[in-house]
Amino acid sequence: MEYVIIGGEIVDRGHATVDIEDRGYQFGDGVYEVIRVYNGKMFTAREHLIRLQESAEKISIQIPYQPTELEEMLKGLIDKNNLSNGIIYMQFTRGESPRNHAFPHNVAPTFVAYTRKVDRPVSSMQEGVKAIFIDDIRWLRCDIKSLNLLGNLLAKQKAVEAGCFEAIQHRGDIVTEGSSSNVAIVKNGTVITHPANNLILNGITRQKVKQVCEQNKIPFEEKEFTIEDVLHADEVFLSGTTVEVTPIVEVEEKKISGGTPGQVTKKLQQLIMDEIVKECGTIE
Amino acid sequence: MEYVIIGGEIVDRGHATVDIEDRGYQFGDGVYEVIRVYNGKMFTAREHLIRLQESAEKISIQIPYQPTELEEMLKGLIDKNNLSNGIIYMQFTRGESPRNHAFPHNVAPTFVAYTRKVDRPVSSMQEGVKAIFIDDIRWLRCDIKSLNLLGNLLAKQKAVEAGCFEAIQHRGDIVTEGSSSNVAIVKNGTVITHPANNLILNGITRQKVKQVCEQNKIPFEEKEFTIEDVLHADEVFLSGTTVEVTPIVEVEEKKISGGTPGQVTKKLQQLIMDEIVKECGTIE
Repeated sequence: MEYVIIGGEIVDRGHATVDIEDRGYQFGDGVYEVIRVYNGKMFTAREHLIRLQESAEKISIQIPYQPTELEEMLKGLIDKNNLSNGIIYMQFTRGESPRNHAFPHNVAPTFVAYTRKVDRPVSSMQEGVKAIFIDDIRWLRCDIKSLNLLGNLLAKQKAVEAGCFEAIQHRGDIVTEGSSSNVAIVKNGTVITHPANNLILNGITRQKVKQVCEQNKIPFEEKEFTIEDVLHADEVFLSGTTVEVTPIVEVEEKKISGGTPGQVTKKLQQLIMDEIVKECGTIE
Repeated sequence: MEYVIIGGEIVDRGHATVDIEDRGYQFGDGVYEVIRVYNGKMFTAREHLIRLQESAEKISIQIPYQPTELEEMLKGLIDKNNLSNGIIYMQFTRGESPRNHAFPHNVAPTFVAYTRKVDRPVSSMQEGVKAIFIDDIRWLRCDIKSLNLLGNLLAKQKAVEAGCFEAIQHRGDIVTEGSSSNVAIVKNGTVITHPANNLILNGITRQKVKQVCEQNKIPFEEKEFTIEDVLHADEVFLSGTTVEVTPIVEVEEKKISGGTPGQVTKKLQQLIMDEIVKECGTIE
Protein backbone atom coordinates (compact mmCIF):
# COMPACT_ATOMS: atom_id res chain seq x y z
CA MET A 1 0.00 0.00 0.00
CA GLU A 2 1.31 3.39 -1.03
CA TYR A 3 0.44 6.51 0.95
CA VAL A 4 0.25 10.20 0.13
CA ILE A 5 -0.37 13.39 2.07
CA ILE A 6 -3.48 15.41 1.29
CA GLY A 7 -4.39 18.37 3.42
CA GLY A 8 -1.96 17.44 6.18
CA GLU A 9 -3.26 13.86 6.51
CA ILE A 10 -1.61 10.66 5.34
CA VAL A 11 -4.13 8.77 3.20
CA ASP A 12 -4.13 5.78 0.82
CA ARG A 13 -2.90 6.62 -2.67
CA GLY A 14 -6.24 5.39 -4.02
CA HIS A 15 -8.08 8.17 -2.20
CA ALA A 16 -5.79 10.88 -3.46
CA THR A 17 -8.11 13.18 -5.33
CA VAL A 18 -8.77 16.91 -5.37
CA ASP A 19 -11.84 18.92 -6.26
CA ILE A 20 -12.23 20.07 -9.87
CA GLU A 21 -12.36 23.67 -8.60
CA ASP A 22 -9.04 23.45 -6.83
CA ARG A 23 -7.16 26.43 -8.27
CA GLY A 24 -4.27 24.14 -9.06
CA TYR A 25 -6.48 22.28 -11.52
CA GLN A 26 -8.08 25.30 -13.17
CA PHE A 27 -5.21 27.78 -13.20
CA GLY A 28 -1.97 26.00 -12.25
CA ASP A 29 -2.20 28.34 -9.27
CA GLY A 30 0.38 26.78 -7.00
CA VAL A 31 4.02 25.97 -6.29
CA TYR A 32 5.96 22.75 -5.86
CA GLU A 33 9.24 21.11 -4.97
CA VAL A 34 10.90 17.76 -5.59
CA ILE A 35 13.41 16.53 -3.01
CA ARG A 36 15.81 13.62 -3.62
CA VAL A 37 15.79 10.82 -1.08
CA TYR A 38 18.91 8.68 -0.60
CA ASN A 39 19.02 5.92 2.02
CA GLY A 40 15.63 7.05 3.27
CA LYS A 41 16.98 10.56 3.98
CA MET A 42 16.15 13.80 2.18
CA PHE A 43 19.08 15.61 0.54
CA THR A 44 19.10 19.43 0.92
CA ALA A 45 15.59 19.34 2.38
CA ARG A 46 16.01 22.66 4.17
CA GLU A 47 17.10 24.45 1.00
CA HIS A 48 14.14 23.07 -0.96
CA LEU A 49 11.66 23.97 1.76
CA ILE A 50 12.97 27.53 2.01
CA ARG A 51 12.64 27.90 -1.75
CA LEU A 52 9.11 26.49 -1.57
CA GLN A 53 8.27 29.16 0.99
CA GLU A 54 9.83 31.84 -1.24
CA SER A 55 7.94 30.67 -4.35
CA ALA A 56 4.69 30.68 -2.39
CA GLU A 57 5.34 34.19 -1.05
CA LYS A 58 6.02 35.49 -4.55
CA ILE A 59 2.46 34.59 -5.55
CA SER A 60 0.94 35.37 -2.13
CA ILE A 61 0.15 31.82 -1.08
CA GLN A 62 0.45 31.38 2.68
CA ILE A 63 1.91 27.97 3.50
CA PRO A 64 0.35 27.02 6.82
CA TYR A 65 3.48 25.17 8.08
CA GLN A 66 6.94 26.17 9.17
CA PRO A 67 9.75 24.54 7.12
CA THR A 68 10.75 22.35 10.10
CA GLU A 69 7.15 21.22 10.60
CA LEU A 70 6.82 20.43 6.91
CA GLU A 71 10.10 18.51 7.01
CA GLU A 72 8.72 16.32 9.79
CA MET A 73 5.55 15.57 7.82
CA LEU A 74 7.59 14.65 4.75
CA LYS A 75 9.86 12.41 6.83
CA GLY A 76 6.75 10.72 8.18
CA LEU A 77 5.56 9.95 4.63
CA ILE A 78 8.98 8.66 3.53
CA ASP A 79 9.01 6.30 6.53
CA LYS A 80 5.41 5.21 6.03
CA ASN A 81 6.19 4.32 2.39
CA ASN A 82 9.53 2.70 3.31
CA LEU A 83 11.17 4.78 0.61
CA SER A 84 14.90 4.19 0.40
CA ASN A 85 15.93 5.81 -2.90
CA GLY A 86 13.72 8.08 -4.91
CA ILE A 87 11.98 11.42 -4.65
CA ILE A 88 9.37 13.12 -2.58
CA TYR A 89 7.13 15.52 -4.48
CA MET A 90 5.05 18.20 -2.80
CA GLN A 91 2.82 21.02 -3.97
CA PHE A 92 0.70 23.74 -2.47
CA THR A 93 -2.12 25.28 -4.46
CA ARG A 94 -4.14 28.32 -3.45
CA GLY A 95 -6.98 25.95 -2.56
CA GLU A 96 -10.51 25.19 -3.59
CA SER A 97 -12.78 28.05 -4.61
CA PRO A 98 -15.37 28.93 -7.29
CA ARG A 99 -13.46 29.90 -10.44
CA ASN A 100 -12.43 33.57 -10.44
CA HIS A 101 -9.08 35.04 -11.51
CA ALA A 102 -8.72 37.22 -8.41
CA PHE A 103 -7.49 35.49 -5.25
CA PRO A 104 -10.20 34.10 -2.96
CA HIS A 105 -10.43 35.12 0.70
CA ASN A 106 -10.25 32.71 3.63
CA VAL A 107 -9.39 29.67 1.55
CA ALA A 108 -6.86 27.14 2.85
CA PRO A 109 -4.11 26.03 0.45
CA THR A 110 -4.24 22.41 -0.72
CA PHE A 111 -1.13 20.47 0.29
CA VAL A 112 -0.33 17.29 -1.62
CA ALA A 113 2.79 15.13 -1.28
CA TYR A 114 3.80 11.69 -2.51
CA THR A 115 6.93 9.62 -2.91
CA ARG A 116 8.29 7.61 -5.79
CA LYS A 117 11.14 5.15 -6.16
CA VAL A 118 13.65 6.55 -8.64
CA ASP A 119 17.06 5.14 -9.42
CA ARG A 120 20.02 7.44 -9.82
CA PRO A 121 20.63 8.05 -13.56
CA VAL A 122 23.99 6.29 -13.36
CA SER A 123 24.51 5.49 -17.03
CA SER A 124 23.52 8.99 -18.18
CA MET A 125 25.91 10.45 -15.63
CA GLN A 126 28.74 8.22 -16.84
CA GLU A 127 28.16 8.42 -20.58
CA GLY A 128 26.48 11.81 -20.95
CA VAL A 129 23.29 12.78 -22.79
CA LYS A 130 22.25 14.60 -25.95
CA ALA A 131 20.37 17.90 -26.12
CA ILE A 132 18.64 20.19 -28.59
CA PHE A 133 18.28 23.98 -28.57
CA ILE A 134 14.81 25.47 -28.28
CA ASP A 135 13.35 28.99 -28.01
CA ASP A 136 12.51 29.88 -24.42
CA ILE A 137 8.86 30.94 -24.70
CA ARG A 138 8.07 30.87 -20.98
CA TRP A 139 6.86 33.68 -18.78
CA LEU A 140 9.17 36.20 -17.15
CA ARG A 141 8.97 34.76 -13.61
CA CYS A 142 10.84 31.51 -14.08
CA ASP A 143 12.35 32.14 -10.62
CA ILE A 144 9.01 30.97 -9.18
CA LYS A 145 8.75 27.17 -9.05
CA SER A 146 5.10 27.23 -10.09
CA LEU A 147 2.71 24.68 -11.56
CA ASN A 148 2.52 26.65 -14.82
CA LEU A 149 4.81 24.26 -16.66
CA LEU A 150 3.41 24.05 -20.16
CA GLY A 151 6.40 25.81 -21.73
CA ASN A 152 8.73 23.36 -20.00
CA LEU A 153 6.63 20.38 -21.10
CA LEU A 154 6.61 21.45 -24.75
CA ALA A 155 10.39 21.92 -24.65
CA LYS A 156 11.02 18.50 -23.06
CA GLN A 157 8.66 16.81 -25.51
CA LYS A 158 10.57 18.33 -28.47
CA ALA A 159 13.79 16.95 -27.00
CA VAL A 160 12.32 13.47 -26.57
CA GLU A 161 10.95 13.51 -30.12
CA ALA A 162 14.46 14.39 -31.34
CA GLY A 163 15.88 11.40 -29.46
CA CYS A 164 17.48 13.68 -26.88
CA PHE A 165 17.36 13.94 -23.11
CA GLU A 166 17.01 17.68 -22.65
CA ALA A 167 16.11 20.91 -24.43
CA ILE A 168 18.46 23.83 -23.83
CA GLN A 169 16.25 26.92 -23.83
CA HIS A 170 17.46 30.32 -25.08
CA ARG A 171 16.01 33.82 -25.35
CA GLY A 172 17.50 35.28 -28.49
CA ASP A 173 21.10 34.02 -28.37
CA ILE A 174 21.27 33.81 -24.58
CA VAL A 175 20.98 30.36 -23.04
CA THR A 176 18.72 30.30 -19.98
CA GLU A 177 18.21 26.75 -18.70
CA GLY A 178 16.95 23.25 -19.51
CA SER A 179 13.29 22.22 -19.38
CA SER A 180 13.76 20.66 -15.94
CA SER A 181 17.40 21.40 -15.12
CA ASN A 182 19.97 24.20 -15.11
CA VAL A 183 22.65 24.31 -17.81
CA ALA A 184 26.31 25.21 -17.33
CA ILE A 185 29.31 25.28 -19.61
CA VAL A 186 32.99 24.92 -18.81
CA LYS A 187 35.45 27.10 -20.73
CA ASN A 188 39.17 27.18 -19.95
CA GLY A 189 38.51 25.64 -16.54
CA THR A 190 35.78 28.11 -15.53
CA VAL A 191 32.21 26.95 -14.85
CA ILE A 192 29.73 29.45 -16.35
CA THR A 193 25.98 29.47 -15.76
CA HIS A 194 23.11 31.96 -16.21
CA PRO A 195 22.70 34.47 -13.37
CA ALA A 196 19.93 33.61 -10.91
CA ASN A 197 17.39 36.21 -12.00
CA ASN A 198 13.76 36.11 -13.18
CA LEU A 199 14.65 34.09 -16.29
CA ILE A 200 15.73 30.86 -14.57
CA LEU A 201 14.92 28.76 -11.55
CA ASN A 202 17.80 28.99 -9.08
CA GLY A 203 18.31 25.24 -8.78
CA ILE A 204 19.32 23.78 -5.44
CA THR A 205 21.86 21.56 -7.21
CA ARG A 206 23.03 24.63 -9.14
CA GLN A 207 23.64 26.33 -5.78
CA LYS A 208 25.43 23.22 -4.46
CA VAL A 209 27.66 23.23 -7.55
CA LYS A 210 28.48 26.87 -6.88
CA GLN A 211 29.28 26.07 -3.26
CA VAL A 212 31.60 23.14 -4.01
CA CYS A 213 33.32 25.15 -6.76
CA GLU A 214 34.07 27.89 -4.26
CA GLN A 215 35.24 25.40 -1.63
CA ASN A 216 37.50 23.65 -4.14
CA LYS A 217 38.84 26.71 -5.95
CA ILE A 218 37.16 25.84 -9.24
CA PRO A 219 36.44 29.18 -10.97
CA PHE A 220 32.66 29.74 -11.11
CA GLU A 221 30.95 32.62 -12.89
CA GLU A 222 27.28 33.56 -13.07
CA LYS A 223 26.99 35.34 -16.39
CA GLU A 224 25.10 35.10 -19.64
CA PHE A 225 26.43 32.80 -22.35
CA THR A 226 25.23 32.10 -25.88
CA ILE A 227 24.29 29.21 -28.12
CA GLU A 228 27.68 29.64 -29.81
CA ASP A 229 29.41 29.43 -26.42
CA VAL A 230 27.67 26.08 -25.82
CA LEU A 231 28.78 24.71 -29.19
CA HIS A 232 32.37 25.78 -28.52
CA ALA A 233 32.49 24.94 -24.81
CA ASP A 234 35.06 22.53 -23.41
CA GLU A 235 32.29 20.86 -21.42
CA VAL A 236 28.53 21.28 -20.95
CA PHE A 237 26.48 19.84 -18.11
CA LEU A 238 23.03 19.83 -16.56
CA SER A 239 22.38 20.12 -12.86
CA GLY A 240 19.19 19.21 -11.07
CA THR A 241 17.61 17.29 -8.25
CA THR A 242 17.19 14.04 -10.13
CA VAL A 243 19.91 14.43 -12.78
CA GLU A 244 22.48 15.55 -10.17
CA VAL A 245 25.35 16.59 -12.49
CA THR A 246 24.81 15.05 -15.94
CA PRO A 247 27.23 15.72 -18.82
CA ILE A 248 25.90 16.85 -22.17
CA VAL A 249 28.08 15.27 -24.85
CA GLU A 250 26.17 16.28 -27.95
CA VAL A 251 24.04 19.33 -28.84
CA GLU A 252 22.13 19.51 -32.12
CA GLU A 253 24.25 16.62 -33.37
CA LYS A 254 27.52 18.43 -32.62
CA LYS A 255 29.84 16.57 -30.24
CA ILE A 256 30.91 18.41 -27.07
CA SER A 257 34.31 17.65 -25.47
CA GLY A 258 34.85 14.87 -28.00
CA GLY A 259 31.56 13.21 -27.13
CA THR A 260 32.64 12.12 -23.64
CA PRO A 261 32.16 13.67 -20.19
CA GLY A 262 34.84 16.24 -19.33
CA GLN A 263 37.15 16.36 -16.35
CA VAL A 264 35.55 19.32 -14.57
CA THR A 265 32.10 17.74 -14.92
CA LYS A 266 33.38 14.46 -13.49
CA LYS A 267 35.05 16.29 -10.62
CA LEU A 268 31.77 18.09 -9.85
CA GLN A 269 29.87 14.79 -9.90
CA GLN A 270 32.26 13.52 -7.24
CA LEU A 271 32.04 16.69 -5.14
CA ILE A 272 28.23 16.59 -5.22
CA MET A 273 28.36 12.91 -4.30
CA ASP A 274 30.54 13.85 -1.31
CA GLU A 275 27.80 16.30 -0.22
CA ILE A 276 25.14 13.61 -0.60
CA VAL A 277 27.19 11.16 1.47
CA LYS A 278 27.70 13.81 4.18
CA GLU A 279 23.93 14.30 4.53
CA CYS A 280 22.54 10.88 3.68
CA GLY A 281 25.35 8.36 4.16
CA THR A 282 27.21 6.17 1.69
CA ILE A 283 25.44 5.44 -1.60
CA GLU A 284 25.75 1.87 -2.85
CA MET B 1 -28.64 19.00 -6.92
CA GLU B 2 -25.98 20.33 -9.25
CA TYR B 3 -24.36 18.13 -11.89
CA VAL B 4 -21.04 18.19 -13.71
CA ILE B 5 -19.44 16.19 -16.50
CA ILE B 6 -16.34 14.16 -15.70
CA GLY B 7 -14.91 11.82 -18.30
CA GLY B 8 -17.98 11.97 -20.48
CA GLU B 9 -20.40 11.08 -17.66
CA ILE B 10 -22.81 13.38 -15.84
CA VAL B 11 -22.17 13.02 -12.10
CA ASP B 12 -23.17 14.80 -8.88
CA ARG B 13 -21.11 17.92 -8.19
CA GLY B 14 -20.08 16.37 -4.87
CA HIS B 15 -18.27 13.54 -6.63
CA ALA B 16 -16.39 15.85 -8.94
CA THR B 17 -12.77 15.08 -8.16
CA VAL B 18 -9.68 14.28 -10.19
CA ASP B 19 -6.56 12.33 -9.35
CA ILE B 20 -3.59 14.25 -7.91
CA GLU B 21 -1.49 13.03 -10.85
CA ASP B 22 -3.84 14.42 -13.45
CA ARG B 23 -1.47 16.50 -15.59
CA GLY B 24 -3.84 19.42 -15.24
CA TYR B 25 -3.12 19.48 -11.52
CA GLN B 26 0.64 19.07 -11.71
CA PHE B 27 1.50 21.04 -14.84
CA GLY B 28 -1.54 23.06 -15.93
CA ASP B 29 -1.30 20.75 -18.94
CA GLY B 30 -4.65 21.39 -20.56
CA VAL B 31 -6.98 23.78 -22.38
CA TYR B 32 -10.36 25.27 -21.58
CA GLU B 33 -13.30 27.34 -22.78
CA VAL B 34 -16.12 29.31 -21.17
CA ILE B 35 -19.36 29.67 -23.14
CA ARG B 36 -22.10 32.14 -22.22
CA VAL B 37 -25.60 30.76 -21.78
CA TYR B 38 -28.64 33.03 -22.35
CA ASN B 39 -32.18 31.67 -22.05
CA GLY B 40 -30.75 28.18 -21.66
CA LYS B 41 -28.96 28.44 -25.02
CA MET B 42 -25.23 28.68 -25.69
CA PHE B 43 -24.03 31.80 -27.51
CA THR B 44 -21.34 31.23 -30.19
CA ALA B 45 -20.91 27.62 -29.07
CA ARG B 46 -19.52 26.49 -32.40
CA GLU B 47 -16.83 29.20 -32.39
CA HIS B 48 -15.74 28.33 -28.85
CA LEU B 49 -15.62 24.60 -29.58
CA ILE B 50 -13.54 25.12 -32.71
CA ARG B 51 -11.10 27.25 -30.72
CA LEU B 52 -10.98 24.55 -28.02
CA GLN B 53 -10.02 22.05 -30.69
CA GLU B 54 -7.34 24.43 -32.03
CA SER B 55 -5.88 25.09 -28.57
CA ALA B 56 -5.74 21.36 -27.91
CA GLU B 57 -4.03 20.66 -31.23
CA LYS B 58 -1.40 23.33 -30.53
CA ILE B 59 -0.25 21.35 -27.50
CA SER B 60 -0.93 17.92 -29.05
CA ILE B 61 -3.91 16.96 -26.90
CA GLN B 62 -6.37 14.82 -28.84
CA ILE B 63 -9.94 15.71 -27.87
CA PRO B 64 -11.90 12.48 -28.24
CA TYR B 65 -15.10 14.19 -29.40
CA GLN B 66 -16.22 16.05 -32.51
CA PRO B 67 -17.38 19.66 -31.85
CA THR B 68 -21.00 18.69 -32.60
CA GLU B 69 -20.81 15.73 -30.22
CA LEU B 70 -19.30 17.93 -27.51
CA GLU B 71 -22.02 20.52 -28.11
CA GLU B 72 -24.68 17.87 -27.48
CA MET B 73 -23.03 16.81 -24.21
CA LEU B 74 -22.84 20.43 -23.04
CA LYS B 75 -26.48 21.01 -23.96
CA GLY B 76 -27.35 17.94 -21.93
CA LEU B 77 -25.61 19.37 -18.87
CA ILE B 78 -27.25 22.79 -19.26
CA ASP B 79 -30.66 21.10 -19.41
CA LYS B 80 -29.90 18.78 -16.50
CA ASN B 81 -28.91 21.78 -14.37
CA ASN B 82 -31.85 23.89 -15.60
CA LEU B 83 -29.40 26.70 -16.35
CA SER B 84 -31.10 29.71 -17.84
CA ASN B 85 -28.48 32.47 -17.65
CA GLY B 86 -24.86 31.86 -16.82
CA ILE B 87 -21.82 30.09 -18.20
CA ILE B 88 -20.70 26.61 -19.02
CA TYR B 89 -17.03 25.91 -18.31
CA MET B 90 -15.13 23.02 -19.85
CA GLN B 91 -11.54 21.83 -19.81
CA PHE B 92 -9.51 18.99 -21.25
CA THR B 93 -6.23 17.99 -19.65
CA ARG B 94 -3.72 15.53 -21.07
CA GLY B 95 -4.95 13.01 -18.50
CA GLU B 96 -3.69 11.06 -15.55
CA SER B 97 -0.15 9.72 -15.62
CA PRO B 98 2.90 9.40 -13.33
CA ARG B 99 4.62 12.80 -13.27
CA ASN B 100 7.03 13.26 -16.17
CA HIS B 101 7.51 16.36 -18.32
CA ALA B 102 7.37 14.44 -21.61
CA PHE B 103 3.92 13.50 -22.88
CA PRO B 104 2.62 10.10 -21.78
CA HIS B 105 1.51 7.47 -24.29
CA ASN B 106 -1.97 5.93 -24.46
CA VAL B 107 -3.47 8.20 -21.83
CA ALA B 108 -7.01 9.52 -22.28
CA PRO B 109 -7.60 13.26 -21.74
CA THR B 110 -9.65 14.23 -18.70
CA PHE B 111 -12.82 16.13 -19.67
CA VAL B 112 -14.49 18.25 -17.00
CA ALA B 113 -17.46 20.60 -17.47
CA TYR B 114 -19.78 22.45 -15.15
CA THR B 115 -22.31 25.27 -15.28
CA ARG B 116 -22.76 28.34 -13.14
CA LYS B 117 -25.47 30.98 -12.88
CA VAL B 118 -23.99 34.35 -13.77
CA ASP B 119 -25.88 37.59 -14.26
CA ARG B 120 -24.99 39.90 -17.11
CA PRO B 121 -22.74 42.71 -15.79
CA VAL B 122 -25.40 45.29 -16.57
CA SER B 123 -24.23 48.11 -14.31
CA SER B 124 -20.58 47.77 -15.42
CA MET B 125 -21.73 47.83 -19.01
CA GLN B 126 -23.81 50.95 -18.43
CA GLU B 127 -21.43 52.90 -16.21
CA GLY B 128 -18.05 51.57 -17.30
CA VAL B 129 -15.16 50.25 -15.22
CA LYS B 130 -11.68 51.31 -14.10
CA ALA B 131 -8.40 49.70 -15.14
CA ILE B 132 -4.70 49.77 -14.36
CA PHE B 133 -1.70 49.13 -16.60
CA ILE B 134 0.54 46.17 -15.85
CA ASP B 135 3.59 44.58 -17.49
CA ASP B 136 2.64 41.56 -19.57
CA ILE B 137 4.93 38.86 -18.16
CA ARG B 138 3.17 35.88 -19.69
CA TRP B 139 4.57 33.28 -22.06
CA LEU B 140 4.76 33.77 -25.82
CA ARG B 141 1.84 31.48 -26.70
CA CYS B 142 -1.07 33.48 -25.36
CA ASP B 143 -3.00 32.35 -28.45
CA ILE B 144 -3.44 28.99 -26.70
CA LYS B 145 -6.30 29.05 -24.18
CA SER B 146 -4.37 26.93 -21.69
CA LEU B 147 -4.65 26.28 -17.97
CA ASN B 148 -1.31 28.07 -17.36
CA LEU B 149 -2.99 31.21 -16.06
CA LEU B 150 -0.75 32.41 -13.25
CA GLY B 151 0.34 35.54 -15.12
CA ASN B 152 -3.31 36.41 -15.76
CA LEU B 153 -4.21 35.79 -12.11
CA LEU B 154 -1.43 38.02 -10.80
CA ALA B 155 -2.51 40.80 -13.18
CA LYS B 156 -6.19 40.55 -12.19
CA GLN B 157 -5.31 40.49 -8.49
CA LYS B 158 -3.26 43.71 -8.89
CA ALA B 159 -6.27 45.34 -10.52
CA VAL B 160 -8.59 44.26 -7.73
CA GLU B 161 -6.14 45.50 -5.09
CA ALA B 162 -6.10 48.87 -6.85
CA GLY B 163 -9.91 49.00 -6.73
CA CYS B 164 -10.15 48.37 -10.47
CA PHE B 165 -11.94 45.83 -12.63
CA GLU B 166 -9.23 44.93 -15.09
CA ALA B 167 -5.48 45.10 -15.73
CA ILE B 168 -4.43 46.24 -19.20
CA GLN B 169 -1.28 44.30 -19.99
CA HIS B 170 1.52 45.70 -22.14
CA ARG B 171 4.86 44.46 -23.48
CA GLY B 172 7.11 47.49 -23.51
CA ASP B 173 4.78 50.26 -24.69
CA ILE B 174 2.52 47.98 -26.72
CA VAL B 175 -0.82 47.07 -25.17
CA THR B 176 -1.68 43.38 -25.59
CA GLU B 177 -4.90 42.49 -23.74
CA GLY B 178 -6.64 42.36 -20.37
CA SER B 179 -6.17 39.59 -17.81
CA SER B 180 -9.38 37.90 -18.93
CA SER B 181 -10.59 40.06 -21.80
CA ASN B 182 -9.41 41.75 -24.98
CA VAL B 183 -8.84 45.52 -25.03
CA ALA B 184 -9.76 47.91 -27.83
CA ILE B 185 -9.58 51.66 -28.24
CA VAL B 186 -11.64 53.99 -30.41
CA LYS B 187 -9.83 56.88 -32.11
CA ASN B 188 -11.57 59.23 -34.56
CA GLY B 189 -14.29 56.66 -35.06
CA THR B 190 -11.98 53.71 -35.75
CA VAL B 191 -11.92 50.67 -33.45
CA ILE B 192 -8.32 49.51 -32.93
CA THR B 193 -7.24 46.28 -31.24
CA HIS B 194 -4.07 44.17 -31.07
CA PRO B 195 -3.53 41.79 -34.00
CA ALA B 196 -4.51 38.18 -33.30
CA ASN B 197 -1.02 36.71 -33.04
CA ASN B 198 0.87 34.72 -30.38
CA LEU B 199 0.67 37.58 -27.85
CA ILE B 200 -3.08 37.57 -27.29
CA LEU B 201 -6.01 35.22 -27.17
CA ASN B 202 -8.22 35.80 -30.19
CA GLY B 203 -11.42 36.33 -28.21
CA ILE B 204 -14.69 35.08 -29.65
CA THR B 205 -16.36 38.35 -28.61
CA ARG B 206 -13.41 40.22 -30.18
CA GLN B 207 -14.16 38.36 -33.42
CA LYS B 208 -17.87 39.16 -33.09
CA VAL B 209 -17.02 42.84 -32.60
CA LYS B 210 -14.91 42.70 -35.77
CA GLN B 211 -17.78 41.07 -37.65
CA VAL B 212 -20.44 43.57 -36.57
CA CYS B 213 -18.07 46.47 -37.31
CA GLU B 214 -17.60 45.18 -40.85
CA GLN B 215 -21.34 44.61 -41.30
CA ASN B 216 -22.14 48.11 -40.02
CA LYS B 217 -19.33 50.01 -41.72
CA ILE B 218 -17.60 50.94 -38.46
CA PRO B 219 -13.87 51.19 -39.30
CA PHE B 220 -12.00 48.35 -37.53
CA GLU B 221 -8.21 47.94 -37.50
CA GLU B 222 -6.07 45.17 -36.05
CA LYS B 223 -2.81 46.93 -35.23
CA GLU B 224 -0.56 47.60 -32.30
CA PHE B 225 -1.34 50.56 -30.05
CA THR B 226 0.46 51.96 -27.04
CA ILE B 227 -0.17 52.96 -23.45
CA GLU B 228 -0.18 56.58 -24.61
CA ASP B 229 -2.79 55.73 -27.24
CA VAL B 230 -5.03 54.34 -24.49
CA LEU B 231 -4.65 57.45 -22.36
CA HIS B 232 -5.51 59.66 -25.34
CA ALA B 233 -8.19 57.45 -26.87
CA ASP B 234 -11.71 58.73 -27.47
CA GLU B 235 -13.04 55.49 -25.99
CA VAL B 236 -11.61 52.29 -24.52
CA PHE B 237 -13.48 49.03 -24.04
CA LEU B 238 -13.07 45.42 -23.03
CA SER B 239 -14.60 42.51 -24.89
CA GLY B 240 -15.08 39.01 -23.55
CA THR B 241 -17.49 36.17 -23.02
CA THR B 242 -18.79 37.35 -19.66
CA VAL B 243 -18.05 41.09 -19.92
CA GLU B 244 -19.55 41.25 -23.46
CA VAL B 245 -18.57 44.85 -24.40
CA THR B 246 -17.67 46.79 -21.24
CA PRO B 247 -16.51 50.42 -21.40
CA ILE B 248 -13.35 51.47 -19.58
CA VAL B 249 -13.91 54.98 -18.28
CA GLU B 250 -10.77 55.43 -16.20
CA VAL B 251 -7.19 54.12 -16.56
CA GLU B 252 -4.59 54.73 -13.86
CA GLU B 253 -6.89 57.43 -12.45
CA LYS B 254 -7.10 59.26 -15.76
CA LYS B 255 -10.65 59.67 -17.11
CA ILE B 256 -11.35 58.30 -20.60
CA SER B 257 -14.03 59.93 -22.79
CA GLY B 258 -14.98 62.21 -19.93
CA GLY B 259 -15.53 59.30 -17.55
CA THR B 260 -18.60 57.97 -19.34
CA PRO B 261 -19.10 55.24 -21.96
CA GLY B 262 -18.61 56.51 -25.52
CA GLN B 263 -20.97 56.35 -28.48
CA VAL B 264 -19.10 53.70 -30.49
CA THR B 265 -18.85 51.45 -27.42
CA LYS B 266 -22.57 51.81 -26.77
CA LYS B 267 -23.33 51.07 -30.43
CA LEU B 268 -21.18 47.91 -30.24
CA GLN B 269 -22.97 46.79 -27.08
CA GLN B 270 -26.25 47.01 -28.99
CA LEU B 271 -24.89 45.23 -32.06
CA ILE B 272 -23.52 42.39 -29.92
CA MET B 273 -26.87 42.21 -28.11
CA ASP B 274 -28.55 41.86 -31.50
CA GLU B 275 -26.29 38.87 -32.22
CA ILE B 276 -27.16 37.33 -28.85
CA VAL B 277 -30.88 37.78 -29.50
CA LYS B 278 -30.50 36.20 -32.94
CA GLU B 279 -28.95 33.05 -31.44
CA CYS B 280 -30.58 32.85 -28.03
CA GLY B 281 -33.79 34.89 -28.16
CA THR B 282 -34.79 38.08 -26.41
CA ILE B 283 -32.93 38.92 -23.20
CA GLU B 284 -35.07 40.29 -20.38
